[in-house]
Amino acid sequence: MALRLYDLAGADPNVRFSPYCWRTRMALAHKRLAVETIPWRFTEKQAIAFSGQGRVPVLVDGNTTVADSWAIAEHLERAYPDRPSLFGGAAGLATARFINAWADTIQVAGLARLIVVDVFACIDAKDREYFRTSREQRFGMSLEALCADRDNQVTAFRHSLQPLRTMLAAQPHVGGAAANYTDYIVFGAFQWARCVSAFRLLEPDDPIGAWLERLLDAFDGLARNAPRAVQMTA
Amino acid sequence: MALRLYDLAGADPNVRFSPYCWRTRMALAHKRLAVETIPWRFTEKQAIAFSGQGRVPVLVDGNTTVADSWAIAEHLERAYPDRPSLFGGAAGLATARFINAWADTIQVAGLARLIVVDVFACIDAKDREYFRTSREQRFGMSLEALCADRDNQVTAFRHSLQPLRTMLAAQPHVGGAAANYTDYIVFGAFQWARCVSAFRLLEPDDPIGAWLERLLDAFDGLARNAPRAVQMTA
Repeated sequence: MALRLYDLAGADPNVRFSPYCWRTRMALAHKRLAVETIPWRFTEKQAIAFSGQGRVPVLVDGNTTVADSWAIAEHLERAYPDRPSLFGGAAGLATARFINAWADTIQVAGLARLIVVDVFACIDAKDREYFRTSREQRFGMSLEALCADRDNQVTAFRHSLQPLRTMLAAQPHVGGAAANYTDYIVFGAFQWARCVSAFRLLEPDDPIGAWLERLLDAFDGLARNAPRAVQMTA
Repeated sequence: MALRLYDLAGADPNVRFSPYCWRTRMALAHKRLAVETIPWRFTEKQAIAFSGQGRVPVLVDGNTTVADSWAIAEHLERAYPDRPSLFGGAAGLATARFINAWADTIQVAGLARLIVVDVFACIDAKDREYFRTSREQRFGMSLEALCADRDNQVTAFRHSLQPLRTMLAAQPHVGGAAANYTDYIVFGAFQWARCVSAFRLLEPDDPIGAWLERLLDAFDGLARNAPRAVQMTA
């Protein structure tokens, strides 16, 4: 039986935009595991109550249920040791935790200041009150206020990516010669933005752009072909 | 023959404060390699001209000369494969590059805004003009102006450490259960500050403090016992 993944969806059920679910989608593809994705909305807590918590990704793998993208990656590495490795060993996994923490606290948080209004615009009508209330409480201001200065805030966001940019001068992927889970961690946030927002995050000549293109091409264009709520102008 | 390391020194030749040299000192101790350190000042370019460049660390290992802390770590891992591993394999090494880039572009750069006046106060008289001119050109302002607002700037610095703080909630070291080179990368910058500055970087209850204590204790207190240009008040 194929694995099942509860995957955050927008008003259009085909638009899947969670940065954390994208980490899992890419990890499953890396492990060459087929997955059935189930569109899920923020307020459908009941549908994933069996997981013991209220957020996605939630992976159902036979009799095992795992929530949280990091826990899912660890599960996949443990359960499918003969498939391509996500971490390349214990030291790789340990160090990947730093990148996971960087992505969560710096990258995703920085991106939220730029695109949360666009996220709001694409979510299902029934999620809007929950999303606005919970995010405005977290940020301490309205979604619109948070993004009001994004044309200037983007400079700080681009600066915060300097570790990634510097590293990509030495090797093509965060994982080294080939992509591994560390790439998917960082890529997930960019794919989140790509699915919901037309706001330009990177300068056209930013070397991060070439790395993004490689990740978009991975697994037969899994991420590139994913439906988006917006159309970018060229 | 013991390895030789050209190691940045202050006016007091026993004060060794370079964040990059500290990465190497800890890496050598991790590999259980004895080293003879040679105090070196910023303006002694002639003394390391044999390395083909003008900065430390420079390691002389038999007939091999290696400059740059990252290149030295790679050399040690390659030349001493039977000693404790610095990276734990190819994936660990690749991912460590991200942490190295984070430390260089975010952590060291952020610390410079807080302590560069204290660095200036401890360097050798003959280095002062070089140091001031080169750093003021890099930062685009005087050393004093850079640090003038450090009581407020420290808040942004502490925030920038959030990836480290978050990760340390899951495991005791960046390298996982035990310290490896990724820990020494990040530790080197804190040791730089410790050697030259009394400015308080962390809140007393910051979990990063407990990790720092572990690194100070490592290798029989190698870093803790290192001479400092300043005495901290308790």
